Amino acid sequence: QSPKKLLVLPGDGIGPEVMQEVRHIMTWLEQKRGLSFEVSEDLVGGASLEKYGVPIRDEVIEKAWAADAVLFGSVGDPRWAHVGFEKRPELAILKLRQELALFANLRPAQVFDALVDASTLRPEVVQGLDIMIVRESVGGIYFGSPRGIETLSDGSKKGINTEVYTTSEIERVARVAFDLARKRQGRVCSVEKCNVMESGLLWKEVVTELHAREYQDVELSHMLADNCAMQLVRNPRQFDVIVTGNLFGDLLSDLASMLTGSLGMLPSATLGVADESGKFPALYEPIHGSAPDIAGKGIANPLAQILSFAMLLRYSLNLQDAAQEIENAVSAVLASGLRTADIAGAGQKAVSTSEMGKAIIEVL
Amino acid sequence: QSPKKLLVLPGDGIGPEVMQEVRHIMTWLEQKRGLSFEVSEDLVGGASLEKYGVPIRDEVIEKAWAADAVLFGSVGDPRWAHVGFEKRPELAILKLRQELALFANLRPAQVFDALVDASTLRPEVVQGLDIMIVRESVGGIYFGSPRGIETLSDGSKKGINTEVYTTSEIERVARVAFDLARKRQGRVCSVEKCNVMESGLLWKEVVTELHAREYQDVELSHMLADNCAMQLVRNPRQFDVIVTGNLFGDLLSDLASMLTGSLGMLPSATLGVADESGKFPALYEPIHGSAPDIAGKGIANPLAQILSFAMLLRYSLNLQDAAQEIENAVSAVLASGLRTADIAGAGQKAVSTSEMGKAIIEVL
Ligand SMILES: CC(C)[C@H](C(=O)O)[C@@H](O)C(=O)O
Ligand SMILES: CC(C)[C@H](C(=O)O)[C@@H](O)C(=O)O
Repeated sequence: QSPKKLLVLPGDGIGPEVMQEVRHIMTWLEQKRGLSFEVSEDLVGGASLEKYGVPIRDEVIEKAWAADAVLFGSVGDPRWAHVGFEKRPELAILKLRQELALFANLRPAQVFDALVDASTLRPEVVQGLDIMIVRESVGGIYFGSPRGIETLSDGSKKGINTEVYTTSEIERVARVAFDLARKRQGRVCSVEKCNVMESGLLWKEVVTELHAREYQDVELSHMLADNCAMQLVRNPRQFDVIVTGNLFGDLLSDLASMLTGSLGMLPSATLGVADESGKFPALYEPIHGSAPDIAGKGIANPLAQILSFAMLLRYSLNLQDAAQEIENAVSAVLASGLRTADIAGAGQKAVSTSEMGKAIIEVL
Repeated sequence: QSPKKLLVLPGDGIGPEVMQEVRHIMTWLEQKRGLSFEVSEDLVGGASLEKYGVPIRDEVIEKAWAADAVLFGSVGDPRWAHVGFEKRPELAILKLRQELALFANLRPAQVFDALVDASTLRPEVVQGLDIMIVRESVGGIYFGSPRGIETLSDGSKKGINTEVYTTSEIERVARVAFDLARKRQGRVCSVEKCNVMESGLLWKEVVTELHAREYQDVELSHMLADNCAMQLVRNPRQFDVIVTGNLFGDLLSDLASMLTGSLGMLPSATLGVADESGKFPALYEPIHGSAPDIAGKGIANPLAQILSFAMLLRYSLNLQDAAQEIENAVSAVLASGLRTADIAGAGQKAVSTSEMGKAIIEVL
């Protein structure tokens, strides 16, 4: 088999530290499982700004297209907060999503049995929680125009952003949600704000029609975004798959992942449009950000990055066994009681990033 | 003293039931405390659609202008879900906010000691919680244009909404937040999504400048909306006053109020611009909606509506003593163990809407 081409983009903050642990696992898979990866690593975010003056180079976007999959760390760096809107580190991930048309951002919020106590919610409310949020990720108010800041004649200013959704944009992401639901509990909840926004009204219409046409075997419900935020706290286990737009998805998925109490544990996948051969561009990244406050200390939790890599093996490379092996190793290490600082309970000893990484390889 | 003019708009669902209990308290205040109210009651929402074919009549808007304050119930009714965007019941509250320029929506999220167990969050995380969310309520994506649904040449559609914020809109609501913080713990957290939206960038700039010019005694911090959603679950007591735009405020305030576990307990105030005499239009309403599933059953919790009336007495009529009396009565009744169904614990007996209302008057 020809080697799998991976583009690895560690990014800022704790990105490089946690990515390091994944690199060890890649090596292990090559040595012990006969897999072969052709890895290219590059800079994005603040790290790229520092060296190249831009958050991401066109060259990196081209490499991403050429790769079988992209493994992303995180971007965002307070030292670059001053450079302005056109040069912020976050543009790296926004550009990758948009240029590769990575329209479906899959964000699981799963409670690991061993970590129920990490949640600030009561154990009986979150035990066994398993939600999949499918967030549209190349449209909506993130990318609509007109946008910008205008200066008015009296010197005051006006900030403008535009939310746009078209039938086809809504349909393709809803399709991903319905397909996922079929492999899960068979329920989709579509979330918008159709009582105040026409874009939400269209969203609801399109999802309803697609459901009636092609997915009647899946149970569809609708919920307003404000109510969804409440229901995620009141009774999160009512949800199976949630499908929503870019902005609501941003808030609701962060909220949902925080219910699990272990943000440092959660991976995500962002999938693009398949070509005739069935190949699709895809990017995998942890839910957590660059966490500048703990960067460089060697205490970050590498498991979200490691589980993102497992998702990559599963979705993009179809290496189910290798993915499962890694996921099992993570469960085993957690069950053995090993904890990084973010998930350690009061009085529990915390291990370092590299100790956690080594423990995973030992179990493998 | 001339009677205080109140416009009472019970609306849909449980609105009329819970409003009934406030009417009894008004009567009590007139009889026992020598206050005098001139109350005008009218229809809004689905109830108005049914009788007049519109969610709110111009006449009602005029009455609202003429009143000393508006006491609002709730609007929203699944039976009117089909009438379309231009006739939805929710327009009643949206129009009132906009026409009266009620720009500052104050939403307290407070945990009542007696009700700590109603929250799905752990008691130690929410005990003593006291957040005030100040939500901009006449701007942003709720009201910006262009907006609507366009049909494209291929028959597919495009939904559009526009978020607009100007310097003066941001400044006036930030001012309310800073002024409130001075009477509270002195901390304001301003929330936007400045890493992806220019309107959020302007928001942050304007708040920062106003703070530097006039409110240096208040502690100001900034937070991204997705992070705020997380922090509200992780450690909600870090917040004192949160100030944010219309859409984020909608989600975050519902989320924050659900942390208290007792949505049926929380009032809100929406304040307009003061004229030369210092008089300002204002509307008071519970955080909860019309709850159609339990409407007409006589089991709804009237306390949010009653506490909204207490806020009205305090803010609009400057009747501090009467407001305090009502708030104390609510605390006393809760301490005595009385519970409506929404806040009753497992195995606790629940009382009806009118029993709860009567209990308050007995304590008064
Ligand atoms: C980094 C930022 C631009 C990004 C977003 O808002 O989409 C992040 O919050 C996310 O959710 O992946
Ligand atoms: C009824 C609805 C239009 C309203 C809103 O979205 O503002 C409600 O959710 C609220 O928060 O008061």
